[in-house]
Amino acid sequence: MRIALLGGTGDIGQGLALRWGYDTGHEVLVGSRDPEKARTKAEEYETELDSRGVETTIKGFENAMAADRADVVVLAVPAYHLVDTVEAIADRLDDETILVTPAVGMKRDEDGFHYNRPGAGSVAALADEAKPDDVPLVGAFHNLPAGGLANLDRTVEWDTLVFGEDEDAKGIVMDLAREIEGLRPLDVGGLANAPEVESVTPLLINVAMQNDDLHDLGVRFQ
Amino acid sequence: MRIALLGGTGDIGQGLALRWGYDTGHEVLVGSRDPEKARTKAEEYETELDSRGVETTIKGFENAMAADRADVVVLAVPAYHLVDTVEAIADRLDDETILVTPAVGMKRDEDGFHYNRPGAGSVAALADEAKPDDVPLVGAFHNLPAGGLANLDRTVEWDTLVFGEDEDAKGIVMDLAREIEGLRPLDVGGLANAPEVESVTPLLINVAMQNDDLHDLGVRFQ
Repeated sequence: MRIALLGGTGDIGQGLALRWGYDTGHEVLVGSRDPEKARTKAEEYETELDSRGVETTIKGFENAMAADRADVVVLAVPAYHLVDTVEAIADRLDDETILVTPAVGMKRDEDGFHYNRPGAGSVAALADEAKPDDVPLVGAFHNLPAGGLANLDRTVEWDTLVFGEDEDAKGIVMDLAREIEGLRPLDVGGLANAPEVESVTPLLINVAMQNDDLHDLGVRFQ
Repeated sequence: MRIALLGGTGDIGQGLALRWGYDTGHEVLVGSRDPEKARTKAEEYETELDSRGVETTIKGFENAMAADRADVVVLAVPAYHLVDTVEAIADRLDDETILVTPAVGMKRDEDGFHYNRPGAGSVAALADEAKPDDVPLVGAFHNLPAGGLANLDRTVEWDTLVFGEDEDAKGIVMDLAREIEGLRPLDVGGLANAPEVESVTPLLINVAMQNDDLHDLGVRFQ
């Protein structure tokens, strides 16, 4: 499968690129608004994987070019760029492409980070409104520690909550999650259940901020 | 320490009563609006603990009577009874009493459970507004599976997120949590961080509803 990581030069994009590169045979494309930056980072990921004995080709493209080539498009961009990004790639998507949002909106005050719930109901709902109707949207990979994912010496021991209205698309994304060793996808129903998923991310940051011995936190449901 | 569990005849009250009874030497008081029901449940908990070789006395009282006698008062009541309950016991509290809220407001639709965030900002903020000013409020024990707590054969392997403005009171509640074997308290800062904690509970229910092999779920941050 060919997976485009839009905003793949950022933290969570790097983590997912390295894990899919390391644990699976899927082809990873790094997308960015700046194609030069995408190519540089793609090379960096290739080098990191090569140093660990994994020979793989990771290519960098401008976001729309990456989306055009992919079966699965992950919107690994900040929440405030989500709608822009979806609009910029909309004509490259079709009903064979699965759009994935790990995006979370947060605001910060003196107490910590807080979920900044959009009027649409969730960040995922914003993406849902912006995308072409026939393209399935799946939410996943919100509550993962980017640093822990990107550090291939670290054992993955986290769950990722997956939601969406299209069961087939959700199943494919859950499979992609499951192929990352130690990552367990958990079905959490439809788009209406997005806000509770998205609001776990600021919670993880607050826990890490308050506890010196905890950082790069994910979550396990048990 | 003397701990009153108001609404202690309910699921989460039962779980906490049994675990504190089993794992610690603290005195547990069961509170209810109906003192007869409180006494019946208190006896039930005593019998369960006795059958496991733990001799302890658990007494039942009307909520205000239980609160009057306690060092720590846990509001183990549904969110829609929280303010009523605090108002009913307010004149029995003083600055030596710690008020603890595990309450979460939820609503349900066809997709699952959702966090019903009050206008005050959180359920904990409602309790904060209703209580006397000099009584410290701590949030804890929101995201625990009541059935799993109440089943003493089940190993506890969960975290509980603890927040509040009074550091001493928070420390005492964290100690009470830590004394339950396998339960790890995690400091998550002040009252402003309550909504993200409270919204984990509907998420746990949604995950359990969607996954047949998962039930009575708690959470571990790692």
